[in-house]
Amino acid sequence: MKIPTLTDVRMAADRIRPYIHHTPVLSSRLVDEWLNASVFFKCENFQHVGAFKMRGASNVVFLLSNEDAQKGVATHSSGNHAQALALAARLRGIPAWIVMPENAPEVKRNAVKGYGAEIRFCKPTLQAREETLEEVVRETGAHFVPPYDDPRVIAGQGTAALELLEQQPDLDIVMAPVGGGGLMCGTAITVRSLHRDINVYGAEPAGADDAWQSYHSGKLIPQTNPDTIADGLRTSLSDLTFEIIHTHLDDLLRVSEPGIVEAMRFIWERMKIIIEPSAAVPVAAMREYPDLFNGKRVGIILSGGNVDLNHLPWQ
Amino acid sequence: MKIPTLTDVRMAADRIRPYIHHTPVLSSRLVDEWLNASVFFKCENFQHVGAFKMRGASNVVFLLSNEDAQKGVATHSSGNHAQALALAARLRGIPAWIVMPENAPEVKRNAVKGYGAEIRFCKPTLQAREETLEEVVRETGAHFVPPYDDPRVIAGQGTAALELLEQQPDLDIVMAPVGGGGLMCGTAITVRSLHRDINVYGAEPAGADDAWQSYHSGKLIPQTNPDTIADGLRTSLSDLTFEIIHTHLDDLLRVSEPGIVEAMRFIWERMKIIIEPSAAVPVAAMREYPDLFNGKRVGIILSGGNVDLNHLPWQ
Repeated sequence: MKIPTLTDVRMAADRIRPYIHHTPVLSSRLVDEWLNASVFFKCENFQHVGAFKMRGASNVVFLLSNEDAQKGVATHSSGNHAQALALAARLRGIPAWIVMPENAPEVKRNAVKGYGAEIRFCKPTLQAREETLEEVVRETGAHFVPPYDDPRVIAGQGTAALELLEQQPDLDIVMAPVGGGGLMCGTAITVRSLHRDINVYGAEPAGADDAWQSYHSGKLIPQTNPDTIADGLRTSLSDLTFEIIHTHLDDLLRVSEPGIVEAMRFIWERMKIIIEPSAAVPVAAMREYPDLFNGKRVGIILSGGNVDLNHLPWQ
Repeated sequence: MKIPTLTDVRMAADRIRPYIHHTPVLSSRLVDEWLNASVFFKCENFQHVGAFKMRGASNVVFLLSNEDAQKGVATHSSGNHAQALALAARLRGIPAWIVMPENAPEVKRNAVKGYGAEIRFCKPTLQAREETLEEVVRETGAHFVPPYDDPRVIAGQGTAALELLEQQPDLDIVMAPVGGGGLMCGTAITVRSLHRDINVYGAEPAGADDAWQSYHSGKLIPQTNPDTIADGLRTSLSDLTFEIIHTHLDDLLRVSEPGIVEAMRFIWERMKIIIEPSAAVPVAAMREYPDLFNGKRVGIILSGGNVDLNHLPWQ
């Protein structure tokens, strides 16, 4: 697949502008003191559906031709991508089918239904997901929108970094969390193309370090048995996202589970904003690798804010 | 005591500008749908010390003459006002004494100590508080800064509404929660002086409805045995704040405890910002008195975001 360019990101930004929030960049004196750096948080937790995923999903939905769009869109996901695709489809007025494992939590089913998408349940295995999705596509002619393994999705996710650099151009480092790699790749392409002198780091839980393993061995090593509270980061890279990460990142940093929880709680308490564990991973990296960040100006993409308020990780 | 005017609020705004956050005004499509109105939230939960109290405390600390300031400031409080006074005093480089009941939670003691203030403990009765404060003042010559019963404090709190009206002038209604009345009075004076056609409402928990009782009976009725989760709103009005509330408010609205918790959780989930129960009280009022707000443009002062993340009210 084609690696997207800065031009693709810029075109995505123009395309999705009416459908997404231009999210604020926040800082905090207390957080800066804690991290011994100047940190600028791009608040994608304030994005529609509570996560950056709205950017990539909207980009695909709104670049389809009228003829293609008419038939609708489909994906398999029970997370933020499912909600994002459902909302983007509603905004374009086209149908969306979401394949979900039959054990998906009710709150996630309801969120997707609330946006008017149709759910197709399947057994909770990867094979069943893929087969059910193929069925839906065959039956409806819907366009499959993958959660990250797609240049159009990556270009959409890159618009968060594009905005960040407009809002705060004077940065030494930009960092994002790495799951499937969609946000990380879009961020890296954007930052490296615009400012070659800004370092780009990825951050990953040590309990789901497939990107770290792949980056350092030079070959794609899929994630098996991820064990982390950062539920958005349990997926594996694809060939495409691995290639971009391998060539565009200055380094990948692994963080501990207690570090993630500590960082998440600190941001909640001091900044009064709700971030999900995945969004806390780059913050934890600043605590765990202080030498890389001391005195630096750091932009962090806070990927999202979707948490179950009945089960907080420090309880 | 003299009732402060818009000029006092404007002077306070100039005086405290370097020491406070100019907090953002946020809105949310989902919240607007839920409340059937256009709501603009002035985010004092993002203020220093996590609450609007920083405004009033700073105003007093920075209007003292050098001679008076030298001797320091003092108050009795274990809440946000204590932290605000401690921080304001640190910013001016003067000492602060905080009288606290000996059973005050450790997290509150540490917060005040962290700003460099000195704590004087007393028995957990109103009488002991006042006596200990008098002792401190006699001993040190420190200037007493009350939490709300003071025109300078009220003028400082009014600066939140002043900013709100600059950020979002086109409003039908402005609403704030009512505890001791400092924020409410500052808000009412500012809004009524600038835009006589904007309605000003106060919101109060039914379990601590001294302002409602006083407003409707026309005489000050102190709060006894408050029973509400909105811990910032358990205090009684003073003669001064009652007089202002009685003459400046269009109405006072009482809300239920389940309504407060529901509103608080909805804001957390949909806006991804942390607000304390007191800040949720005006939001709850919009749910419980929909006829007053349908289709209106409403400004709400979100008073603060200080909550114990180990004990959330829906758990």
